[in-house]
Amino acid sequence: MKLYGYFRSSAAYRVRIALNLKGLAAEYAPVHLVRGEQRQAGFLAKNPQGLVPVLELDDGSLLTQSLAIIEYLDALQPEPRLIPTDALLAAKVRAIALAIACDIHPLNNLRVLDYLKNELHHGREDVGAWVRHWLLKGGLDSIEHMIESAPFCFGASPTLADVCLIPQIFNARRFAAPLEHLPKIKAVEAACAELPAFRAAHPSQHSDAE
Amino acid sequence: MKLYGYFRSSAAYRVRIALNLKGLAAEYAPVHLVRGEQRQAGFLAKNPQGLVPVLELDDGSLLTQSLAIIEYLDALQPEPRLIPTDALLAAKVRAIALAIACDIHPLNNLRVLDYLKNELHHGREDVGAWVRHWLLKGGLDSIEHMIESAPFCFGASPTLADVCLIPQIFNARRFAAPLEHLPKIKAVEAACAELPAFRAAHPSQHSDAE
Repeated sequence: MKLYGYFRSSAAYRVRIALNLKGLAAEYAPVHLVRGEQRQAGFLAKNPQGLVPVLELDDGSLLTQSLAIIEYLDALQPEPRLIPTDALLAAKVRAIALAIACDIHPLNNLRVLDYLKNELHHGREDVGAWVRHWLLKGGLDSIEHMIESAPFCFGASPTLADVCLIPQIFNARRFAAPLEHLPKIKAVEAACAELPAFRAAHPSQHSDAE
Repeated sequence: MKLYGYFRSSAAYRVRIALNLKGLAAEYAPVHLVRGEQRQAGFLAKNPQGLVPVLELDDGSLLTQSLAIIEYLDALQPEPRLIPTDALLAAKVRAIALAIACDIHPLNNLRVLDYLKNELHHGREDVGAWVRHWLLKGGLDSIEHMIESAPFCFGASPTLADVCLIPQIFNARRFAAPLEHLPKIKAVEAACAELPAFRAAHPSQHSDAE
């Protein structure tokens, strides 16, 4: 398998964590988002959305959208399970994952911040306030109440919820969003930091890190 | 079951379609988003995110996030299947659903348009251009290339991809986004319009429609 990603993309970061937790190896192919490599024809042929990550399977199949990729990996290699088999618990796990993947991350993605700067002519201060607003309000502030247990979001082992939460916390720290009022989220962060699968997936550990 | 929704919320519209396709009945409880009912304490106790839809089960369990709810319904009542059992096909179906649910819809949600108007002081013209930009570019323009077959996105029966696409097309028409260059999407729209499950879920068919 081959993973097209970018060190700082939190969607690619999610897939790296999932691959590591499952002990699955994938060749890493960096796509430089700031230089616009995702908009070149070669990459658009792999993903018409022009977004990372893309997982290329050995038979040439191309999978896009980080949560769809992780659901696929969970079916391919069920242990350790990232989506619980109990349907109600699975719904709660997926709700946190989607609250991050739908309601925080896309609003703070590079292409959206570029639109705010280039099309709507907002400066650094407005853009920073925008990022922190969506990170916290209706974002991590709500997710704090959706976390059910410890040390991970849903008990003794990490699920898709933790896999999505850690890259979002990385973004929050990058944009200096305050997290002191979110003790459950900080506890999950500490628990995940103990696991090599999460540590090896960190943006700083990748060949394209700057 | 009880579905908390808003007639024009495309996330609630997705869940209505899924319930109808599966022949599952749910009491409808309108939450008036424009009047801010989703930010009242009573509703925040059901969903800390302050978003619709919420599905309340008969045992009092509260499910949030439309795609998590639909995955739950697909496990509860597997026929007709909205997420294929084949893992690779499921990944492609989920990729279209997520391309809509992550990369189009949250950018054009009421709370984001309100932020553009009230916090960043943009007028109707800028907001309309924003909506159409995310609807088409990296949105429906890319999804056109991800649709694999006819009459539905993935063959002879609707999947989660169609369930997400139809409400997004409704939004596109509301904001006068041009769709003439998207023949596959228009064909899916026509096929779904033939099905009572999709017709009965339309925003105009709900008690809170204005």
